[in-house]
Amino acid sequence: MSRIAFVNGQYCDYSDALIHVDDRGYQFADGVYEVFTIIDSCIIDFQPHLKRLFRSLSELKIVTPIKKSAYLYHIRNIIKKNMIVTGTVYLQVTRGVAKRDFKYPKDIKSSITIIGKVISEDTFYKDIYNGINVKTTKDLRWKRCDIKSLNLLPPVLAKQHAYENNSKEAWLIDDAGFITEGSSSTAWILDKNDVLRTSSLKNNILPGITRETFLKGLCKYKIKFKETSFNIKDIRSAKEAFITSATTFVTPVNMVDNIKIGNGKPGKFAPIFLDIYKKAIKSKI
Amino acid sequence: MSRIAFVNGQYCDYSDALIHVDDRGYQFADGVYEVFTIIDSCIIDFQPHLKRLFRSLSELKIVTPIKKSAYLYHIRNIIKKNMIVTGTVYLQVTRGVAKRDFKYPKDIKSSITIIGKVISEDTFYKDIYNGINVKTTKDLRWKRCDIKSLNLLPPVLAKQHAYENNSKEAWLIDDAGFITEGSSSTAWILDKNDVLRTSSLKNNILPGITRETFLKGLCKYKIKFKETSFNIKDIRSAKEAFITSATTFVTPVNMVDNIKIGNGKPGKFAPIFLDIYKKAIKSKI
Repeated sequence: MSRIAFVNGQYCDYSDALIHVDDRGYQFADGVYEVFTIIDSCIIDFQPHLKRLFRSLSELKIVTPIKKSAYLYHIRNIIKKNMIVTGTVYLQVTRGVAKRDFKYPKDIKSSITIIGKVISEDTFYKDIYNGINVKTTKDLRWKRCDIKSLNLLPPVLAKQHAYENNSKEAWLIDDAGFITEGSSSTAWILDKNDVLRTSSLKNNILPGITRETFLKGLCKYKIKFKETSFNIKDIRSAKEAFITSATTFVTPVNMVDNIKIGNGKPGKFAPIFLDIYKKAIKSKI
Repeated sequence: MSRIAFVNGQYCDYSDALIHVDDRGYQFADGVYEVFTIIDSCIIDFQPHLKRLFRSLSELKIVTPIKKSAYLYHIRNIIKKNMIVTGTVYLQVTRGVAKRDFKYPKDIKSSITIIGKVISEDTFYKDIYNGINVKTTKDLRWKRCDIKSLNLLPPVLAKQHAYENNSKEAWLIDDAGFITEGSSSTAWILDKNDVLRTSSLKNNILPGITRETFLKGLCKYKIKFKETSFNIKDIRSAKEAFITSATTFVTPVNMVDNIKIGNGKPGKFAPIFLDIYKKAIKSKI
C-alpha cells in the first residue's frame, strides 16, 4: 500500500508528496520538526512534543501553518490512513516558499509536512531489548541545539560515522572532553557510584521529551540522579549506559568505542529503567 | 515571463520546480550549493566555484548527479532560458530522496536544482557603490563552515538580526571576540596601520572565491595584507572596511554596529579595491 502523506493542507499519495525547490527548508534548513512515536495506534506524549514544536517555532519566529488544535487531528489521520499500529509520525514545519534570500521573507505561509512510518513491533523493540553500540565523535553542531531545527547536517555526519564503526548511535564530545548528547538521543550512564548521570539542559542540548518523562518516573524510586556531564574516563568505569529518545525509549548501551559497559550486555537496570519510563508516559492518545 | 528551472535532469517552469518531501536536503540540510554571478550573460569565475562545489560534495561523500562537464552546459542553459544579463544562478546538490534516517542511504541518486535570477544592473551595483551597514552578532555556526552546505539556519538568523538593525550584513563574532566572517560574505578591514586584514582560512570559515580572486589581484599592488582576524577594537580604529562575496564583489562597509568607518561613506580604497577585483577575475565564460 502506498503511504499517505499530509503536505500543506492536502492528503496525498506518498509519491506525490512534493514541495517547491524554493521552500526555505530545502535551501536554508529554515524549519523545525518533531517525531512522534506510535504504539497501539496511539501517540506517546503528544502534548509535550507539541509544546516543544511550538517553542521551536517561536524561537525562529515561524508562524504555525495550521491551528494548534489541528495538529492532533492530522497526526491521527496519518496514523489511520497508513494503518500504523507501531511506528512513527514525522512532522516538519518550514518558514515556507520564497525567492532565495537569507533574511526572513514577508507575508509567506509556512509549510507543513506529516509522514507516517509503520514499524513492526519486533523491529521497534529489538535494540531496546538487546542494546546498541555507541561511537564517540567530536560535537560539531551549532550553538542553538535547544531548538529542534532542520540544521541537521552535523548529526547526519555523526550518525554515519557511528554506522561505519559498527555502532547505532554517536555520542558527541565537546571541547572539554565531555559528552553533550547523542546525535539523535540523550546520553546517560550509571556511574561507578551508582549515580545516574546525564548532561544539564544548559549544555546546548535538546530538551528531550523522553528524558523528561523518564526523570519524572525516576523520582518515585530510590535511584541517585545527578544532572552532570560525563567523559570517557567516567564511561570507562560506568556500570551501565543508556540512550533515550522518542523512538528508542530507554535503550541500553553495550559498548562505547572499544569500551565494554559492564559485561557488554544490558545490565540489571536496563529492564527496570525501561519499565519506569513506560509507566511514566503521561499520555497515549 | 515565468522563470525556467532545472530540477533533476528536466527543465521546467519555475512553478513546477518541485522535489519530494523526503529529499534529504529538506529534512537534514544534507546538501551543498554554489551561487554563480552572471555579468553580461557570462559566468564569473566558473571554474573555482565548480572546484569548490566538488570539494564540498567530496567532504560529504555525495556523488555528483550529473557529469562534471555538464554543469557549465546546464548553467548556460539557465542563463539563456531566463535571459539573464546581470544576475545569479543558484545551484544546489543534495544527497537525494530516501526514507528518513540520519545515516547515508545506499543506492540513491543525488538531486540537483539550478535556478536563475535576473537582477537589474543598477540594483546589482547599488550597494557595491554606496556601501552597506554591518551588525555584529555571535557566531552560532557549526565547526565545518569550510563546507558550503545547506546547514544555513545560523546565517539566516544572523542576517535577519542585521536587517532588524538597519544593516545588510552580519559579522559573526567568535568566543574570543574576533570576527570570523560575514553571514554570507568575507569580512575585511583596512586597519589603522593601512594593513588590509581578513581571517585566516584555518578559522572555520568558507574559502571565498571572491576573497581568493581579490587577493591574487592585490599581489600586484603595494598594499600591505595580513591574514589575521580583527575585533571590535580594531574595527573602531579601522580606516575602511569591506565585504566580499560572489554577489557583492568588494562592497564597502560604512558602519559596523554604531561605529562609523572613516567618515561613514566608502573610503578612497573602495573604488581601487573594486577595480583590482574586477581586473583579477580569472574568467567570464
